[in-house]
Amino acid sequence: MGETLKVGLLGYGTVGSEVGHILEKHSEMISKRVGATIKVSKVLVRDASRARKNPIPAGASIETDISAILDDPELDILVEVMGGIDPAYGWIRAALEAGKHVITANKELIAVHGGELLDLARDNSADLYFEAAVAGGIPVIHPLREALIGNRIELIMGIVNGTTNYILTQMEQGNSYEAALKEAQDLGYAEADPSADVDGHDAAAKISILASIAFGSRVTPDDVFTEGISRLSIDDLAYAEELGWVIKLIGLAKRVEGGVDVRVHPTLLPGDHPLASVKDEFNAIFIEGDSVGELMFYGQGAGGLPTASAVVGDVIDVARNTMAGATGMLGCTCFDDNRVIPIDEVVSSYYLRTAVLDRPGVLAKIASAFGRYDVSLAKVLQMQTLEEDRAELVMVTHESQEANVRKALEEIDSLEEVVGVESLIRAEITEGN
Amino acid sequence: MGETLKVGLLGYGTVGSEVGHILEKHSEMISKRVGATIKVSKVLVRDASRARKNPIPAGASIETDISAILDDPELDILVEVMGGIDPAYGWIRAALEAGKHVITANKELIAVHGGELLDLARDNSADLYFEAAVAGGIPVIHPLREALIGNRIELIMGIVNGTTNYILTQMEQGNSYEAALKEAQDLGYAEADPSADVDGHDAAAKISILASIAFGSRVTPDDVFTEGISRLSIDDLAYAEELGWVIKLIGLAKRVEGGVDVRVHPTLLPGDHPLASVKDEFNAIFIEGDSVGELMFYGQGAGGLPTASAVVGDVIDVARNTMAGATGMLGCTCFDDNRVIPIDEVVSSYYLRTAVLDRPGVLAKIASAFGRYDVSLAKVLQMQTLEEDRAELVMVTHESQEANVRKALEEIDSLEEVVGVESLIRAEITEGN
Repeated sequence: MGETLKVGLLGYGTVGSEVGHILEKHSEMISKRVGATIKVSKVLVRDASRARKNPIPAGASIETDISAILDDPELDILVEVMGGIDPAYGWIRAALEAGKHVITANKELIAVHGGELLDLARDNSADLYFEAAVAGGIPVIHPLREALIGNRIELIMGIVNGTTNYILTQMEQGNSYEAALKEAQDLGYAEADPSADVDGHDAAAKISILASIAFGSRVTPDDVFTEGISRLSIDDLAYAEELGWVIKLIGLAKRVEGGVDVRVHPTLLPGDHPLASVKDEFNAIFIEGDSVGELMFYGQGAGGLPTASAVVGDVIDVARNTMAGATGMLGCTCFDDNRVIPIDEVVSSYYLRTAVLDRPGVLAKIASAFGRYDVSLAKVLQMQTLEEDRAELVMVTHESQEANVRKALEEIDSLEEVVGVESLIRAEITEGN
Repeated sequence: MGETLKVGLLGYGTVGSEVGHILEKHSEMISKRVGATIKVSKVLVRDASRARKNPIPAGASIETDISAILDDPELDILVEVMGGIDPAYGWIRAALEAGKHVITANKELIAVHGGELLDLARDNSADLYFEAAVAGGIPVIHPLREALIGNRIELIMGIVNGTTNYILTQMEQGNSYEAALKEAQDLGYAEADPSADVDGHDAAAKISILASIAFGSRVTPDDVFTEGISRLSIDDLAYAEELGWVIKLIGLAKRVEGGVDVRVHPTLLPGDHPLASVKDEFNAIFIEGDSVGELMFYGQGAGGLPTASAVVGDVIDVARNTMAGATGMLGCTCFDDNRVIPIDEVVSSYYLRTAVLDRPGVLAKIASAFGRYDVSLAKVLQMQTLEEDRAELVMVTHESQEANVRKALEEIDSLEEVVGVESLIRAEITEGN
């Protein structure tokens, strides 16, 4: 128990203060399990005078200048929980180059620069861990890199953004998008500017990270077709429920012919899918591997304590590696070079809602437009009469190419009997659901 | 890529043949991720002439004498997938003493001898991994040891036996226990002698392993109160459904005052509990940690391929440790000494079903018997009239001590208005459900 590993903590907000608190509260338990003492010795904050939920760990100094941390040769491990690409990127590079181990919860940074930083870590015999960057406290990066490593991962579908899942759960109960967003903001689940969550960018960063690890090749957020939930209508959620389906914001990563298919958008799922019962702010990641079959990991995807749980798990992992003299073992998981297919090439089922004039022959015209583009319909339902002469048609296609569906819809939209195409929602349903 | 690690495989049945097949099929992918080649070089079987689903990996020899494997100094890793304590115990001891790394899927062996074998491994700079021993392909042992290690684990509840979960799912649909068991046997989910599954012993071994790791102290199957599903009535499953609950065979491990509470028995859960929707032969493990909150891991808990997925994950882990020169890092997780409380001291809610004579005052007499033993009722329901003068009372208690409930029931059973106590099922429900 002689050895002490010193931690520098960048950020002491919601997550950072819980990391400090857990490392202090459980220090005896952790020492027993690591064979060394882990001690937070420096904490970097923007404003040293601000009051904090958890006090700074005993014996730690408060710093406001990053060089006090980067230039301290006694610091073994840097924990970055500030978020954002700058200045975190430069600081983490500098720390790794100095041979310090880095743990980060920074999904944007890892999604964009993960490959390069992992290689930099390995080249400097340092560790770079980031379990907390995806789905907070739920272990998913470790399992993908370790327990599931003998699998060829075929599919990942994740509810990886708690804010949007909370909003969708509220909308399922009949609340409007605006009311649900307001409530999420009041509860602290959503930011004042909610765009990173509701527009899908947060989920896109997370699915980029998971896809990169699962497929052993780089996927960055720029590669990921991303559509948020702000244009979803509660009518579609209600129709989905009537049909035994649910709509979730899904980050999807799938091996397909000619590459990998990675995207984020509202997705129709069968009501008995394991992801369908994930409510409120919970996250879950559904994985299909060629050996393991179907797996799902479920839990709290955000919040100070759950995220801190993952960060502390990584700190202990790195400490064990240090004690074993086995750091710097993980470089970039870029063994392969998979093309990310563009959205036009995606093959999916589609849920479509159109307002039409209630006249004989309208369905025949729509069906024949689909037929011209090789899109066949699995289901057609006339859901309700909107006004005297108008009806709402809900259609679900068999698996079709997105480009073809879009071309057909353009033609359908121009039919005089069609008032307008109201919704297009991609569906992950097997035939028969 | 120069180095080759040699694997000896003990057993080439359902699991072993899939392990051999995956290591061969994915050898290129695995080499990229390990930085070394992993090769099955010897396979121990009972009968060398038997036909096998997957051929023996190319270049491997078939052995029928264990000494060909134990005495081979070139073998780095032993994979044991035969099951049973003997002869596996002696062979694994010998392998570890010779400094070979061992991966096993053997839950009985690890549940009984895990602590000792882990220490033996560490003393010989060898690794002993056993992810496949609990819940097949679902990663749960790694997460408990790694990603969740900064948590104080408060509760584990697992559906860790697929056979009984399949039978209970069938019974929920109105099939009798006997018919459901027969179907499970026909599908290959249950053995000809199903007692290890239906009597709860398989689940007891698995929850012993999870409790030992989660609580950092030894729990062996002898410590675990174990009750199977063979006496469950479909009436109780139907009543539970009517009340919005489900009944699952749960392996439970909980920190309580004065020790830890570890047991296996049919358990009533609220219908909206994450474990409630785990159907058929699927497994799931629900975990509560002081930081991470609620987590659940879900997937295929048995079967050749999912179990082999976990074994191969361990093989790759050990190979990476070997390449890093960091084997032998994990000894017994026995940092603490927690008493396993006896069933009499357990505090739980109870679901009770009694047949009574339909007379005024019977409920008052029953309630006052409970009252004498400090047991208070949360819910009383008269479910149906059995015959003209008989009724069935379903009662749910508030949290009470098991010894008190049993004493009260003894007194109740002797009342002349009580025909008999039909069922006692422990319940994990929070007040209000």
